[in-house]
Amino acid sequence: MAGTDRTQQQIGGGPDIILVGPQLGENIGASARAMLNCGLTAMSLVNPREPWPNEKAVKMSSGATEVLDKAQLFDSIEAAVRGLNRVYAATARPRDNTQRVVTPRHAAEEMRQAVAAGERVGVLFGPERAGLKNEDLLHADTIMTVPLNPAYASLNLAQAVLLVGYEWFQTGADAEPEALRMNATRPANKQELGYFLDRLEQELDASGFFHVDDMRPTMVGNLRTLFQRANLTEQEVRTLHGVVSSLVKPTKPRN
Amino acid sequence: MAGTDRTQQQIGGGPDIILVGPQLGENIGASARAMLNCGLTAMSLVNPREPWPNEKAVKMSSGATEVLDKAQLFDSIEAAVRGLNRVYAATARPRDNTQRVVTPRHAAEEMRQAVAAGERVGVLFGPERAGLKNEDLLHADTIMTVPLNPAYASLNLAQAVLLVGYEWFQTGADAEPEALRMNATRPANKQELGYFLDRLEQELDASGFFHVDDMRPTMVGNLRTLFQRANLTEQEVRTLHGVVSSLVKPTKPRN
Repeated sequence: MAGTDRTQQQIGGGPDIILVGPQLGENIGASARAMLNCGLTAMSLVNPREPWPNEKAVKMSSGATEVLDKAQLFDSIEAAVRGLNRVYAATARPRDNTQRVVTPRHAAEEMRQAVAAGERVGVLFGPERAGLKNEDLLHADTIMTVPLNPAYASLNLAQAVLLVGYEWFQTGADAEPEALRMNATRPANKQELGYFLDRLEQELDASGFFHVDDMRPTMVGNLRTLFQRANLTEQEVRTLHGVVSSLVKPTKPRN
Repeated sequence: MAGTDRTQQQIGGGPDIILVGPQLGENIGASARAMLNCGLTAMSLVNPREPWPNEKAVKMSSGATEVLDKAQLFDSIEAAVRGLNRVYAATARPRDNTQRVVTPRHAAEEMRQAVAAGERVGVLFGPERAGLKNEDLLHADTIMTVPLNPAYASLNLAQAVLLVGYEWFQTGADAEPEALRMNATRPANKQELGYFLDRLEQELDASGFFHVDDMRPTMVGNLRTLFQRANLTEQEVRTLHGVVSSLVKPTKPRN
């Protein structure tokens, strides 16, 4: 639930993020940031265009320097994937090779299983402008393509890295898809809620709210379901008691 | 499959992306790009710090100017959400309010259903540095928090927009999670594969490959499953025939 109550994530052990021929240090830095957002720390650089290490990468990493400091430099894709058992290539464009194509979501599930089975996996990302070349793809077992607006599918490098990392992280995340955030309180129990609803009904009876007898059950039912649906906290029930008290017996004279 | 074969996406009709107090034009532009990547085109700007329209936004949008051109300017969150039926607030930080918290994935499903039912929905994003303030969150029905590395969860604005848009798009995408990309060919049928495997077996018999009779069934089985597993195309089966022919009867003398 929202970062705080979530149990410890399994950080590390994820895929190598292999940037092939990245052109700008800024994009390497932004990719490092996106990686660490997703608990990924193993970055490989194949022939970056600018000298390495790179100050602009550090600046754009927003503190994700642990990724940059550990980044490994290679002079070929072959060298970068040598120790890996399974390699994906992220590319938006259809190519000529006959290769398996998966979504990042599907790949993330496969990678999670592979890593659990002791495999080392990696994902290739091409240079900013041109992407991976056809021959680069031959180093991959599988193509990974992000389902996006077909009329406008081009992602920048760090955003492609983010989506792949995000899907990786989700396969290991145990965040509840839906939760109620509560601070210093707890859900009201049915007794507390019932006591409030009874009291509200009595006050409304006393004030003449239910002036048409036939309508009474419907109106009571509506009020009850309304407050039921709100999933009130114990604190909120107390607040509502205060509201009713205040309306019934104002401490300040009404104008 | 990989953008090309995918049937037409339902573009449009998605949530309003409401940027509250964005500081830099560049981030508005990058957010517009991320939105269009995900088929979202309705951007609302609440009190951007820099004058609007903004040249830096256009530059960073990488051609997603249709989003910027249509962006609506508001002087309060209240005004921006007035026509909406359902509002989410994207925030990484736990706050004091008791509010429902959902993941972007869960929110995307909810939003898809709401839009299908004719509702208008929106997502609030806060300024780059500080994020949404506590009082801003009161304009939202529900908090949306991205499950990320709890030790390093800060996303930049456009990346937060991208993840929310990405999940929106996935709920409407009909991309197959796994597919085989084939160009100008088709999967081999079992007859074609069988004919090749029979031929391979004959050639290996002739060349004395199966010199231990007891091992023959196992070795034949291994070969067959190996090629079965490869999901060969018709083109690849023909290539393999060529490989066998060439090995059996070289057209160039062996050294």
